Amino acid sequence: MSDPKTDVVEKLRELLGERGVRIEPDDFLPDVIVKPESTEQVSGILKICCAAGQSLVPIGGKSGLANGHFQTDGEIGLSLERMSAIEEIDTENRTMTVQAGCILQVAHEAAEEQGLLLPLDLGARGSATVGGNVATNAGGNMVIRYGMVRDMVLGLEVVLADGTVVSNLNKMMKNNTGYDLKQWFIGAEGTLGVITRVVFRLRPLPRSQNTALLAVDDFQSVSRLLRWLDSHTAGTLSAFEVMWPEFYDFVTREGGNHRAPLPRGSAYYVLVETKGSHPESDAESFEAVLGEAMEQGMVSDAVLTRSESERNELWEIRDDVLDFFNLGPFIPFDISVTVDQMEGFIQDVRSGADTLDDPICIFFGHLGDCNLHVLLGNRDPQAFDPARIERILYEAVERHRGSVSAEHGVGLAKREQLHRSRSPEELRLMMSLKKMLDPKNILNPNKIFAAEKIAAL
Amino acid sequence: MSDPKTDVVEKLRELLGERGVRIEPDDFLPDVIVKPESTEQVSGILKICCAAGQSLVPIGGKSGLANGHFQTDGEIGLSLERMSAIEEIDTENRTMTVQAGCILQVAHEAAEEQGLLLPLDLGARGSATVGGNVATNAGGNMVIRYGMVRDMVLGLEVVLADGTVVSNLNKMMKNNTGYDLKQWFIGAEGTLGVITRVVFRLRPLPRSQNTALLAVDDFQSVSRLLRWLDSHTAGTLSAFEVMWPEFYDFVTREGGNHRAPLPRGSAYYVLVETKGSHPESDAESFEAVLGEAMEQGMVSDAVLTRSESERNELWEIRDDVLDFFNLGPFIPFDISVTVDQMEGFIQDVRSGADTLDDPICIFFGHLGDCNLHVLLGNRDPQAFDPARIERILYEAVERHRGSVSAEHGVGLAKREQLHRSRSPEELRLMMSLKKMLDPKNILNPNKIFAAEKIAAL
Repeated sequence: MSDPKTDVVEKLRELLGERGVRIEPDDFLPDVIVKPESTEQVSGILKICCAAGQSLVPIGGKSGLANGHFQTDGEIGLSLERMSAIEEIDTENRTMTVQAGCILQVAHEAAEEQGLLLPLDLGARGSATVGGNVATNAGGNMVIRYGMVRDMVLGLEVVLADGTVVSNLNKMMKNNTGYDLKQWFIGAEGTLGVITRVVFRLRPLPRSQNTALLAVDDFQSVSRLLRWLDSHTAGTLSAFEVMWPEFYDFVTREGGNHRAPLPRGSAYYVLVETKGSHPESDAESFEAVLGEAMEQGMVSDAVLTRSESERNELWEIRDDVLDFFNLGPFIPFDISVTVDQMEGFIQDVRSGADTLDDPICIFFGHLGDCNLHVLLGNRDPQAFDPARIERILYEAVERHRGSVSAEHGVGLAKREQLHRSRSPEELRLMMSLKKMLDPKNILNPNKIFAAEKIAAL
Repeated sequence: MSDPKTDVVEKLRELLGERGVRIEPDDFLPDVIVKPESTEQVSGILKICCAAGQSLVPIGGKSGLANGHFQTDGEIGLSLERMSAIEEIDTENRTMTVQAGCILQVAHEAAEEQGLLLPLDLGARGSATVGGNVATNAGGNMVIRYGMVRDMVLGLEVVLADGTVVSNLNKMMKNNTGYDLKQWFIGAEGTLGVITRVVFRLRPLPRSQNTALLAVDDFQSVSRLLRWLDSHTAGTLSAFEVMWPEFYDFVTREGGNHRAPLPRGSAYYVLVETKGSHPESDAESFEAVLGEAMEQGMVSDAVLTRSESERNELWEIRDDVLDFFNLGPFIPFDISVTVDQMEGFIQDVRSGADTLDDPICIFFGHLGDCNLHVLLGNRDPQAFDPARIERILYEAVERHRGSVSAEHGVGLAKREQLHRSRSPEELRLMMSLKKMLDPKNILNPNKIFAAEKIAAL
């Protein structure tokens, strides 16, 4: 690992002052982190770095799971933590204009105070920044209802590699004036520009919420249940989370962290939730819809929550991924396959896992969005072979025409797997845009694409 | 106007056969139209044209209102009418894979037969093609609930200017594997590539529908009503269409085409609709919600429909734009402004219209999406001065930081207005992508951007 150029650091110190340049030990290495407090400063930083060929890594809350924020080769870290203001909540147009460094949960709370919902929620809400969420096109727990981050961004301000500020803080839902530039930067993981400001579309806060845990006997019923609920809870279905029995049975085991709201041993457990607007009648109609699903044989057992604490209890089961570290080391995967491929994919991964010593092989995920998480590893730490595990998993994804990244992005972690989900023509096009916007490859180099592949284009 | 090169036409005839190359008189000019029947043929056409520097105009249903499909300077027309197959409706994943030349209404009906909804609807449904809809990022009547076309496209197959086929017929809702290339081509009006296949996300068919026409006394109440309905009809509000009194009073005039379901003379008329899933209770709860809006003073009068024919009657009032040609010549504009700017914008346009001789000045639109349509003209055809009318309208859009195109695109009609809604930095970036993907500028040249501006980049 090389260090950032000394003269560049000096120039940045001049631009930003002492508070704006920090040397922070990250793991074992001292890293240079710059902390601008305005878009103008971000632009100034990029001009200095562009002129010197000094590369940068935009850093949000460091909660990404694809290592897109790692500083690996003398890059300077660019943290927007001092640009965290919520600049406006426009209650008439129902939009929020916010600086990229704002923590997601802070943005949530500010919207909620105005009776509005920023419909993006994920485990890292307390540390992730909205800039990082946009840069990775984050997903999370309500995608089935509100879409990915891409679907809630109305406007963006971005600073390009050469320091050019491209600002379009659009608040309008319909705006067909030429190419939709903001789409280039959403999900580009900081490789095309630095996101400095975001305009989000906000939604009305739901006025009621109903949650249930369902036991289902076979996969065909899970798939049928998803379609049935979607058509019988018009526009209000906000979660359809499936846990395979290895997940549920372990997390609710005797002596574990959670009691079992439904008996262990079913084939599938589905956490469903609706967000509605009629507190007086939604619970009743939710119960009726689930009752009919039971009568029709899609659901074998069910528990409905009657309080916020009961609801939390169900979600804590679904979210307790950390519990599995009690079993041994594993890799947490984030992939997509279509619903019709899912059973075959899982069978494939299980067969692969059977070739491992004492395997850990756990499935759960946002089935309503085709998104599975898979924990694959070994109970015996000595036997843990990440490369072999990745091969098993990603080969199965490729065989079932799935996506090697559903919501976590590519970063460094999945860079070498990208060809399994994208064609050479697609990869060439992507790299062409990267080369056009960042010819010196200073913006988060080596993330998504290896630098030498772009250079060879 | 020059003609396409003779040797190019010969080569195309060799590739496509007699059926594949037609000379069709369009208005007064004979135009060469090629009609491929496969993606491979589209690729072959582009290779021939790229080598010869022969430009092309991709043509859908010719229903676009921004003249994006006009052949103005010896371009060859590229019609995908022979590529109109619905290749698959996948009921388990709820997707449709369709060739670009399929007529929108045909796609609707095919989805409906499987109990599914392609949630894109617009007046030209009987002639517009899905390829044209995607190329223009069409909007229409259900955007408030389901979004623009951009929000329902999961996968695309595109042929680039050099004939490269870039295919990603993705069916998964979550797929964060690098840059989201399909976004480049959606709304690019055929200037970046030729869309040959589309994968749409389908939705469950609504099981109930409720429609009402409301009279509202002032704009503040219109804005409040929008927010109130959105929060009290969770996820089911599918239309919020506002007619200003000049619109409603004229269309429902004595001796006109439509009876007045509510008395004329109110300040605003709002057509609202929900699409729900509980036929037995939705009507009652819709009525209760509207009743409460009335009690709270947001609505002064209301009529609810009790049959499909009553519903059609309301929509026919909203859709009868042609009726205004009885008044005289006008330009139909399609613009966006945020809700808080709308009253000021309208005041501005009215003041401008007052400087015209015997003006026509009519407002209506999808207010829930910030999208207004404005008819501006003169009762006296002699006085009709399109350039002056455009200036009045677009200067008002610019003053209120609106968008010169909401859902109709740019094409030729709004090309010279684009700078009012987009910054020089944005325009430069857009043109850079165009230049990168189509260095000879053969794909729909002069649409969105004048050729000389791209050349001067």
